[in-house]
Order: sequence, then structure tokens, then C-alpha cells
Amino acid sequence: MNVDHIEAHPWKIIEETFDPKRVEAAESIFSLGNGAMGQRANFEEQYSGNSFQGSYVAGVFYPDKTKVGWWKNGYPEYFAKVLNAPNWIGIDLKCNNETVDINNATVHHFRRELDMQSGLYTRSVTLSTTNGIKLTLTSERFLAMFQEELGCIRYAVQLHDQKATISLTPYIDAHIKNKDSNWDDPFWKCTGQFANGNFAALHTRTNKSEFDVCTYQAVTFFVDDKWSDAFSCEEKEGRIAFTHQVDLAAGQKITVEKMGGYCSSLQQPAEDQQKHVFTIAQNALEKGFDSLLETQKTHWNDIWGMADITIDGDVKAQQGIRFNIFHLNQTYTGSNPLLNIGPKGFTGEKYGGSTYWDTEAYCLPFYMATKNKLVAENLLNYRHKHLEKAIENANKLGFNSGAALYPMVTMNGEECHNEWEITFEEIHRNAAIAYAIYSFERYTGSTDYLIAKGIDVLVGIARFWAQRVSFSTNKNKYVILGVTGPNEYENNVNNNWYTNYAAKWCLTYTVSRLTFISSKHVDAYKEITNRLSLKADELIAWKEIAKSMYLPYDNKHDVFLQQDGFLDKELTDTSYIPTEQLPINQNWSWDRILRSPYIKQADVLQGFYFFEDHFSTEQLEKNFDFYEPFTVHESSLSPSIHSVLAASLGRVEQAYEFYLRTSRLDLDDYNAEVNEGLHITSMAGTWLSVVEGFGGMRVKNDAIHFTPQLPKAWQSFSFKINFRGSILQLEVDKSFSKVTLIEGKEVPAFINGEKISFSLNRVMS
Amino acid sequence: MNVDHIEAHPWKIIEETFDPKRVEAAESIFSLGNGAMGQRANFEEQYSGNSFQGSYVAGVFYPDKTKVGWWKNGYPEYFAKVLNAPNWIGIDLKCNNETVDINNATVHHFRRELDMQSGLYTRSVTLSTTNGIKLTLTSERFLAMFQEELGCIRYAVQLHDQKATISLTPYIDAHIKNKDSNWDDPFWKCTGQFANGNFAALHTRTNKSEFDVCTYQAVTFFVDDKWSDAFSCEEKEGRIAFTHQVDLAAGQKITVEKMGGYCSSLQQPAEDQQKHVFTIAQNALEKGFDSLLETQKTHWNDIWGMADITIDGDVKAQQGIRFNIFHLNQTYTGSNPLLNIGPKGFTGEKYGGSTYWDTEAYCLPFYMATKNKLVAENLLNYRHKHLEKAIENANKLGFNSGAALYPMVTMNGEECHNEWEITFEEIHRNAAIAYAIYSFERYTGSTDYLIAKGIDVLVGIARFWAQRVSFSTNKNKYVILGVTGPNEYENNVNNNWYTNYAAKWCLTYTVSRLTFISSKHVDAYKEITNRLSLKADELIAWKEIAKSMYLPYDNKHDVFLQQDGFLDKELTDTSYIPTEQLPINQNWSWDRILRSPYIKQADVLQGFYFFEDHFSTEQLEKNFDFYEPFTVHESSLSPSIHSVLAASLGRVEQAYEFYLRTSRLDLDDYNAEVNEGLHITSMAGTWLSVVEGFGGMRVKNDAIHFTPQLPKAWQSFSFKINFRGSILQLEVDKSFSKVTLIEGKEVPAFINGEKISFSLNRVMS
Repeated sequence: MNVDHIEAHPWKIIEETFDPKRVEAAESIFSLGNGAMGQRANFEEQYSGNSFQGSYVAGVFYPDKTKVGWWKNGYPEYFAKVLNAPNWIGIDLKCNNETVDINNATVHHFRRELDMQSGLYTRSVTLSTTNGIKLTLTSERFLAMFQEELGCIRYAVQLHDQKATISLTPYIDAHIKNKDSNWDDPFWKCTGQFANGNFAALHTRTNKSEFDVCTYQAVTFFVDDKWSDAFSCEEKEGRIAFTHQVDLAAGQKITVEKMGGYCSSLQQPAEDQQKHVFTIAQNALEKGFDSLLETQKTHWNDIWGMADITIDGDVKAQQGIRFNIFHLNQTYTGSNPLLNIGPKGFTGEKYGGSTYWDTEAYCLPFYMATKNKLVAENLLNYRHKHLEKAIENANKLGFNSGAALYPMVTMNGEECHNEWEITFEEIHRNAAIAYAIYSFERYTGSTDYLIAKGIDVLVGIARFWAQRVSFSTNKNKYVILGVTGPNEYENNVNNNWYTNYAAKWCLTYTVSRLTFISSKHVDAYKEITNRLSLKADELIAWKEIAKSMYLPYDNKHDVFLQQDGFLDKELTDTSYIPTEQLPINQNWSWDRILRSPYIKQADVLQGFYFFEDHFSTEQLEKNFDFYEPFTVHESSLSPSIHSVLAASLGRVEQAYEFYLRTSRLDLDDYNAEVNEGLHITSMAGTWLSVVEGFGGMRVKNDAIHFTPQLPKAWQSFSFKINFRGSILQLEVDKSFSKVTLIEGKEVPAFINGEKISFSLNRVMS
Repeated sequence: MNVDHIEAHPWKIIEETFDPKRVEAAESIFSLGNGAMGQRANFEEQYSGNSFQGSYVAGVFYPDKTKVGWWKNGYPEYFAKVLNAPNWIGIDLKCNNETVDINNATVHHFRRELDMQSGLYTRSVTLSTTNGIKLTLTSERFLAMFQEELGCIRYAVQLHDQKATISLTPYIDAHIKNKDSNWDDPFWKCTGQFANGNFAALHTRTNKSEFDVCTYQAVTFFVDDKWSDAFSCEEKEGRIAFTHQVDLAAGQKITVEKMGGYCSSLQQPAEDQQKHVFTIAQNALEKGFDSLLETQKTHWNDIWGMADITIDGDVKAQQGIRFNIFHLNQTYTGSNPLLNIGPKGFTGEKYGGSTYWDTEAYCLPFYMATKNKLVAENLLNYRHKHLEKAIENANKLGFNSGAALYPMVTMNGEECHNEWEITFEEIHRNAAIAYAIYSFERYTGSTDYLIAKGIDVLVGIARFWAQRVSFSTNKNKYVILGVTGPNEYENNVNNNWYTNYAAKWCLTYTVSRLTFISSKHVDAYKEITNRLSLKADELIAWKEIAKSMYLPYDNKHDVFLQQDGFLDKELTDTSYIPTEQLPINQNWSWDRILRSPYIKQADVLQGFYFFEDHFSTEQLEKNFDFYEPFTVHESSLSPSIHSVLAASLGRVEQAYEFYLRTSRLDLDDYNAEVNEGLHITSMAGTWLSVVEGFGGMRVKNDAIHFTPQLPKAWQSFSFKINFRGSILQLEVDKSFSKVTLIEGKEVPAFINGEKISFSLNRVMS
């Protein structure tokens, strides 16, 4: 999809032309989700052009047997694959007994629109069929935010100036393809099916992982807006279809309202699923599409009321940030601690799994600030539930005594990644999980989660680091050998500064939390030490390791060293890479990338982002100016962190340049890969670059701080946050910045270092 | 297979018991080969127990689509697989219409014997069938060393005290399994078949690689030694069988002499193959098994006459070294420059490919010293033929202007390995290929190959190193970043001393050879510079890089450093590894191995082995004593190098300990993996540890040197070598060492540093 293919609009995503080459990209961009299910914007009717069919049920995966060239001890047995589920949206369309297929038709007009205010996706197409009949088909679709098993479609076909026999066949079908299969295993089996009246259900089970999913539809037909029940049912193994055929005169129309979707065993036991969705479907049909859409709008209205960011004077920036916020809300609602935020959400299958360190490092702040506390807490609960598995995982790698290593990629807590340099070595992920606990405590001011659950996670992580370090007599320091840092363009390095610093911090923070609990919550502490068999000398060891952790540093440049030996590289900046060789990960062999100085994403600078308070602005500036010129930003997660840091150095225009690389990454398909799905977790990074970058939001000492800056290209921007139950709004324009208390009690807040008195409508020039 | 399962015998390998659990191991140990084909010791008759069926045609491979978890740029499209070929040895045996299967029979007596003096493999089994008939079957088999397409089997069945109807069905069959398939691709297709009289042929072609192989058999039956033609032919698609059924009285016998084997398109064009093997088969049948066996003995007698090593006073050591020499001769005869020495030879499929750096680093000296010059030269020709492919390979990785990177694993010159840390980074292999040219020149005294071909290879390799180094302003030296050394328990390290030193040496040696040619062979030099577009400033650059190459060294220990940062490890020696955790590559996760100090095989010490003259004995001793204690010898190639180095330090008993780990590795199945095949290339290492270790053989300044040492466990040992066309024999016993000129002109030779006058029967005490 080319830049500018999508029209600029503050609230809508609009595509006005039909190009078969753009169909797969558009299928990603116009994806819908409601946290429990989601799908790519596949056509309802048959389409013979290139298409990537994908409809997904949250938390349901297939454990696909690991595929590697050379097995290494400790590799997981399987890779958990997000998998295409049975089709519930399908509607076959025939005109005079011939299948209508946009790919073969003459298209006179084509338009897609995604209205982010309501989550309504509309497609209208005027075409002439191969047998010469001109018709307009209109499809409207949304996934209910108010009822997680419900999706609603209204699909209408209207003739133009000729009569014709039209048949519509809404169906559900379990005979779907799972493209991302290592061994062509069948992912699903059918376990039953049912049809009665206007309702149909298919029961399927995933092989091996044994998730039960009930796929259903319930339909109502209208001819020229008059209800009609003249349809027949055709049932085959794994497919149930209702067909309504009618002779229409010129100008006449047939419409079907189709309610459907999934109920999975994460929601209801298999035996209750059909009854559950039957009730939902009948209620929905009774209310009808228009009424349901009103409810949907109310729900999205509430979401936007809290989560919206307005940007004036730059409609593409406005559209971009809303597109990101929209998809984050479609992907994760926080209602279920078994779910998490997959890198592609419900828009594709790449990267499998659902959970990376992205969740803790990038996504948590968005959900903390725009939802109630429980949503973010569920993200922490997810990891707490996986603690036993993380301990098992560490065990497999030779660690013991409760040391926990959280997986690089997971669905259910088990590691499923299989590259030794990542699976075994990209262990900094463990620190991000501890950092999220710290971040949550800092933001919410609550230690309840910490005391009840978080401390167990912290101790497991601290135990891991204490065993993973080794003592170098040569350096007379603790070192961490053989790791991969956030910059995955270095593998198996020694003493990655970020990893060492984060490990040191984990140990220190865990000790500080234990000390806090032991002094303030004596009974809880007793229970914790029992539960975790915690020994006093463990804490002594952790303090000693933290104190003597080696942190590579170079005197000459006065910067921290990304890793031992970094300065032995030929330190040419990214301007030395010929443009046609970018991105280097598509053009260079891996060894060449590894020995180059080029950085995939923030690494030392990720440390400065996380631990900003530990360093002076001068230190940040030196390290930023040293590392940024080597950074190729070939991870979608990279520009946002650089944007926040540039903003905190007061370089608002540089921050804006980074912002541009992240906010419309998918809409403008910079990397020519949006066909594979959207970059969901990096969308949270875009939010960070506005809120923490241009808004300068920070929490320090139980107070919220803002240091706003406005990029030249913008007239103004504003956003709201939920800070400890109070809703604050920051508004920034060319002449002033204002923080308003919208709802809740007064909270300590600062703007540009000055305390805000909410009795005034505080204006800062 | 347990230690001591194989009887000790100076010339024979004997197994006296039948144990179904040992069948696959014995299939490896009793393997036969003749350089052009070879096979595991599978039974001729049907066997329902566990068996690994393998029969191989030299140089014939299947390019199996690469299987990796995560693709990296530059990975090869396929992995060349040694593949099981159609079965030519099969003989079905029925007794009273029931298939005889040792797995179901009552075995009264079982014996296998491999006579290494003749290459004859005999198996005799006395059993009672499930229908109660007692019989003895005897199978004799050899692969002709005098006719590379010919294998000979004599298979006899004799009844004991009851009569029975016996049928023998010798067959050829293309319906075989290829276990080592990544994607269950069919490796072979049938292209034709032919049967007439006593002769049958199957024509098959490998898919993708399109090698044509004709598999054939020709048979003669005897009933009680009387010729009988009462057999029938049964032909199916891909299978041709001759069946001779006869009612035998008690004590009577039926015998078949079966001549068969393969002719591949490496030997004859497809259209000539059948005629070719028909003539071979008819000649063979005419001569008969006994007469052919006599010819075979003569050929093996000649081989042993030159290649034998005698060890007195230690029959297991004697058996071990002969077993190694026997298999090296079965694997490679040097008659065809398209062939090379696979790590499993004709005994298994593991590691695919046929050529690793093992050939140059370990095997070349054996063939130089025990064969005529042309055999070793063909090993060099093999790499010269692959130079264009090596340049292409380097190109794929971003090198240019004629830089050549030889593959890690190959069949036809194309890289087929697919682990980035090996494929792209274990580049020291390139130096071994240059070293072989040097070694050949040093041993033969001939520069013909160098001038005609070798210099092209050297220039390609030098160009690679010149582009692969980078200049570290930090160290003010050239560095080599991101490599894997011979010790594969370190990946992606910076400045592996062995690699840096070998690269430096390659550059220096290439310059010296160019200088030599330019001064002594002016016309040749002109041609070379034209052919290679060689520029004068290339030589200047190579000298400069060699001069300023960084070589990591530690002052405190006064040793070279295996790589940057080695001293940051916890330097615990191998005694700290709990026995149950050995071998660590089966028990530890890869990251744990990588950050340990443990060394898989000689690394710094490989440099001391190759470049012995460059260092003092004191340097060797310090480095040996530093690195050996960290070495786990988990490569079969490791102990032999340590054995040679220990011997050159005068530590003969330590050398002997290492020797024990290599010489009977397969016979005693130390690593419980002999079922997968034999360690062919490490067998050459065993030869090195006797000849270069205990014999102390070296070539210096066009003279041959010996510094013999006798391990306590031995009474004496002796071996012969071909040095520049003269055959010398070294005999060493407890009281003296003697070098005798067996054949050829007098050559400069030294023993313990004193020049030998061959007019005397020189005796050294």
C-alpha cells in the first residue's frame, strides 16, 4: 500500500479505490477486534484474488511442533501459533446463479470506511457482474464492545437498472486454512454442529491444545426492507449455510442481518457454549443491527472520552494517533487475566504467541493511564499466574531454587521461542517484568498487588539474576556473559550495559520492596518468607551483587558501552549505509549486521528511558548523541523511545521526526509489510511519544508532572489521563499549556516543575 | 554397544553374540566401502528388528530444502543430504514358505567377522525357524577395491537334521526409505528397469539433483555346490527379484553368488550405465566369488603394505589403529576429484554433506603419507574446482572482487549449512584450505599445483580476509569481529586468536607465494595476475593487515587469549563438571555452554598444532597447560591434536591417554552413538597421533624428521610413509628406533635431530 492511499480524516480510515494488490494490506488496516475476538477485513462474499484470511479467538492457540535446523538443549517442544478460526462472516452472493466475485467483476465504485468513533467498518461496491448485471453491495460490520461473543453484519445487495435473481448465503465454515503451519498439521477438528430455524452453530476443537470454540450465526433476511423467511438451510460436515434466493426487479434490494462470532472455552465450558451464544444471537436479532450499533457507539464514546488524543493543525497526525489508540482498544480490554497483547493483535499471525516484553516495556503505561487500575493490574496478574512456568523454564536452563526466567514469547507461560540467541540469551525481558511492577506501584501509589503477588515475581526474578551473573576475577566485578540486549543486532555479547544495569536494579528494587514489607507489613512478610523459602543471606548476596555489578563505560566518549568491545567496531554512522541496502535486515547477511555498529532499537537508551531519574540530562545527551547516529530503527518499537528521549532533551522537532516514523507506520505502510498485520504493541509506543514525549508526563514522588512541548507542525494537542482515580486533561497550544481536573479528587500535579492549583484554570505560557 | 562387545584381535573385528539392541551399532562398525560406494552392515534377508538401512553412492546427494526456525539472509536454499540408495544386497529367505527373520527365530549361534586384511565381511547364523527347522545361513560380502562398481555376496543356507523347502530370492529394490528427510520429500524416482536371464538393473534418478544411478544384480545359484538355473524372475515397478526354490534334504545346502552394486552418473553417462555394469557382472560371475576374493586380498595387501601401523604388546591398540586405517581406505581412494571424505563416510547419514574442514585439517596428511601424490592432490583439486562457488558464496554475504569463502559443509561447492554462527562465522575453515596447499607443498616439495591452481585459491582466500577484517581505532589494529573458532562452544566472539593468527598467516603466505612465483616463474606470474586481475596494491594491503593484525594475549598468564573477554569467565577446570552432566552438549543449555570456559576441541592449541614452528616449546607448554584443563573434548577431532601436542612436549603418557580416547572411539562406542555411523574424519586424527605424535614425524626444510617416543603400554610400533616417492619405515621399540629406506631414492631424513645415513641400519637408543 502506498503512502497516501488512505485518505486523511480525523476520525475515519477511508479507501476509495479498488486495487487487487492492495487487498491484503487493507485487510490488516481495516481489521476489527473487541478484545475477545477479532479479524482481518476479509470480504464476506467469495473473492478469488490474493487475500489473507484471518479470524482469531483471543487466547486460543495451536502448539505447533518446533521447527529448527539444529536442535539445542532447552529448546521448547512447540511454538504457540495464533490460528485462523472457523469463518463466521461468510456470505456467498450469486446473481442469476453465478457467483459474484469482485476480482472478476467490473468495479464502478469501491469504498471502505472504518469509523473509529463507533468501530463500524463499512464497504460499498458498485459493480457489473460477468453476466452483465449492475448492482451495489453494501456491508456494514462491527464487533460488539458490549458483548464479547457478538459480531454484527448487515449485508445488502441492490440492483440498478435490470432485474435479476439474487441469492444470499450466509454461512459458517470450519474448513479454513492455517497458512502458518510448520508441518501442515490440521489445527482444528470438528466436534459437532447444530442448525435450527435461523440459528446455526459449529463446534470445533484445536488439536493438542484442546480449546473448544463454538462458531455461530443467526440471520434475518429482508427484501426491500420487508422481513422474509423464505430461506433454506444446507448442512454439510463442518459447514452450515442459509440460502435466500429471490427474483428482484430493477432497483430492488435484499438484505441480511447476520449475528455471529465465537464462544471459546476461555469464556464458557464447551457444553454451555451453544446455549450461551444462542441467547446472545436471538437477543441481538430482536434488537436489530441499527439498535445494536447505537449501543456500540455509546461504548466507543466512553472509550474515546478517556483515551482520545486531539491534535489540531495536522489531520494526518490526528488520524494516526487515533488509529493507534483505536487498535490498542480493539486488542486488549483487560477483562481477562488469561489474555495479553499480541504483537499483531487480531490482525495477523506473524510472531505467533501473544506476549512479548513489549507488554511491560511499551503497553502498560497506556492501559494504566487510559483505563481503570484493574485493567493494568490484569496485565500484571497474567505474569503472576505464569510464575511457576517461569521457574520451570529457568530450571530447564540449569537454574534452581525458585529462579524464574519469563519466556521471550508465550501464550500460556511456557516459552515457545526457538533461537538460542533470543530464547536463552535475551534475558533482559525478565527485568521489564519487574519494572512493570515498579511502574504500576509508582503510577497507582498502591502496594496491594506488590504485597499479595508482585513480590513473588520479584523474588523469582532476583534469584534468576543472582544465579545468572558470574564473578570475573579479572574485572573484580560481577559480569553477565553471553546475552542479547534489546538491540537484537548484537547476539551473545558480554556485559550488555542495559542488561547489567537492569539486573542490578532488579536486585536493588527487590531488596527495597522486601525491606519495605518487612517494616510496614510484618505479618505479610512472615507469610512471604515462608511461601518463598526466602533466606536472609539471599538478600545479602543480592545487595553485594548489585553493588559490584560491572557496568561498561568508556572514558574517552564519556558514555556507557552497549557491551564489551563495542568500540572495536568501525564506528561509521547510518549515513554510510547506501539507501538501497536499507533495511539492513533485508539486505545484509546476519554476520555483517552483527559486526556492524548499527543498532536495531534503543538499547543503552532503553536504560535511559526506564531509569531516567538515575542519570543527569548531560549524561542522557552524551549517550543519546553517541548512540542515536548508529540506530537504524528497524524495530517498530525504536522511534517512540527516541522520540520521548529527544523531547526530554528539549529537542521537540527531532522528537517530532521520530514521532512521524511511528504514528503512521501501518497507515502509510512504511515497511511494505502491513499485509502481514499491524504493529499493535508499537502503537503503544506512539501513545508514549505524545504523552511522555510532547506532554512530558512523569510520576515522581506520588505526583504527576507535565513538561509540555508543541511541535511546530501542530496548532495544539490535548489528552486525558486517569491518575489514581482522578481524570486530568492536558491541553497544549502555541501560547499556553493547561491541566484541568475533569473528574475526581485533587491530586498533586506539576507543570514545568510548578505545582498546579486546580482551583485556578492554570495557564502556563 | 558396550565396551568389550567386540573381541580384541589384531586383524579382525569379531562379534560373537546376537543382541537386537546392538544391531544398529554393529551395522555401523561392520560397514564396507570402496571409495565409490559403501554400505552399512544390514542383513541381506528380511529383519523386523530395529535397523538403520543405509547404502550409499559416492557423490550422489539430495538437495533437501533448508529447514530452519527463523530464516536469515544468506542462508542456503538446501542442505545436501547423503542418501540411502536402492537396495542391491537384498536376499529374501523362506523356509517352508515362511520368511526367515532372525528377530523371530531362535538363534543358536551368531558370528560376524570383518577381516580387515581382505575387506571381507562374514556373517554366520545357526537358528531354528518359527516353524521348527534348524538351519545355518552364511553370508560373505565384500566391495571390490579393484572394480568400483562391483560388490560380491555369497549367501548360503544349509539345513541341519530335517528336510525343508528353501527359497532364496536375491533382489534389487528402489522402494527404500530416506530417514533423514526434512519434509518427507521423495528423494528418488524410477526411470526404467531391465531384467534378462540372470541379470537385472534398476534405473533411478535423484529428484532435483538429477543424479542417475543404475543398481544391478547378477546371480548364480548352486544346490549343494552344483550349479542350478531353476529360478524364476519376478518384476514389479522398482523391484526385480529372482527366486530359486528347492526341496532340500537334511544337511543339504543352497547357495547364491550375487554380484551387484551401483554405477552412477559420476562414473558413466546414464545411457551407458546398464551396459557397463552388465559386462562387469558377467565377468564377475564367470570368475566366481572365490577368485574375486583372491583379487580383493591382493589389493588390500598392497594397501596394508604401505598404510599399516603395527603395535606390539597392546592388541586392542593394534586393532583400533587398523580399524581406523581400514575405514579411511574404504572411504576415499583419491581416484576422483569430485569426491571427498564425509564425516560418516559410507557408514551413516548424520551431518549430510561430504566435505568439512576436517579434510584439510585432519585427513590430508594421512593420504599424503600413505598414498601416491595424486591422491592428496585430488583433495586439493576438489577445492580448486569449487573456487567459483566459494566466490559466489562470499558474494552472497556481501564480499566482492574475487573474495572466496569456502563452505562449512558442501557436496558440490555450494554452502549447505544453516546456523548463522557456523555458516557465516566459522570462517577459520578458509584458512585450513590455504594451509592444506602449504602442507602439500611442504610435504611433496612440489610447487606445480601451487602455480597451476593453488595460487588462485590462495588469492581468493586472501581477498576474503582482507575484506573481513576491520580496523579498530580503539586498538589501532586490525580486528576480526563476530566469529566462531574451532571451539564451537563459543559463538560470535571477537578476535578469536586462532582465526586472527590463521588469517594473518594466510595473507603472509599468499604474498610469499606470489613473490616466489613472480621471481622464479615470470610467465606464470603474468598469467596469474591477468587471470585474477591482481593489483599490486592488494599485496601491499595484505602485508599491512598481516603486520597490524590484533592477536589477543594476556600478560598475567603469558598465554594467547582464545578470544577477547575469555578471562572474564569463571575459570573452573573440567573437574568442576559433575560426571552426570557430561557430555555438557547433551546436558546443558546452549547459553550455559557458551558462557562457561569449556572448550569443545583444540582452538588456540589448533594454532600451535598448525604453526608449531612459529612458537617456542615454552610457549606451547604454557598455552597447553592453560587451555587443556578447560577442554571437554566433545568433538571426536579434539583428543588427537592434544595427543600430538602432548607428545611434542615429551609427555608421552599424557599423549597416550588422549590417544586412547580417539583410537577406539567407535569400536568401543564411548559416546553411545555409533549406531549413527562411524567418525571417519577423526580416524585420520588417530593416525596423526601415532605418526606425528609418537613417531614425531615432521617435514622441515625439505627433510623428514622423526622424534620417536614409546608409550609404556606398548612393546614396539612401526609405520611406513611415502616421502617424495621414497618409502621409509620407522620402527620403535623399548631399546631402539630405526628408520629404514624400503623403496626409492635416498631422501634427507633425521631422527631426533641427527641426519640418517641410510647405508647403515641406523639404530637409536
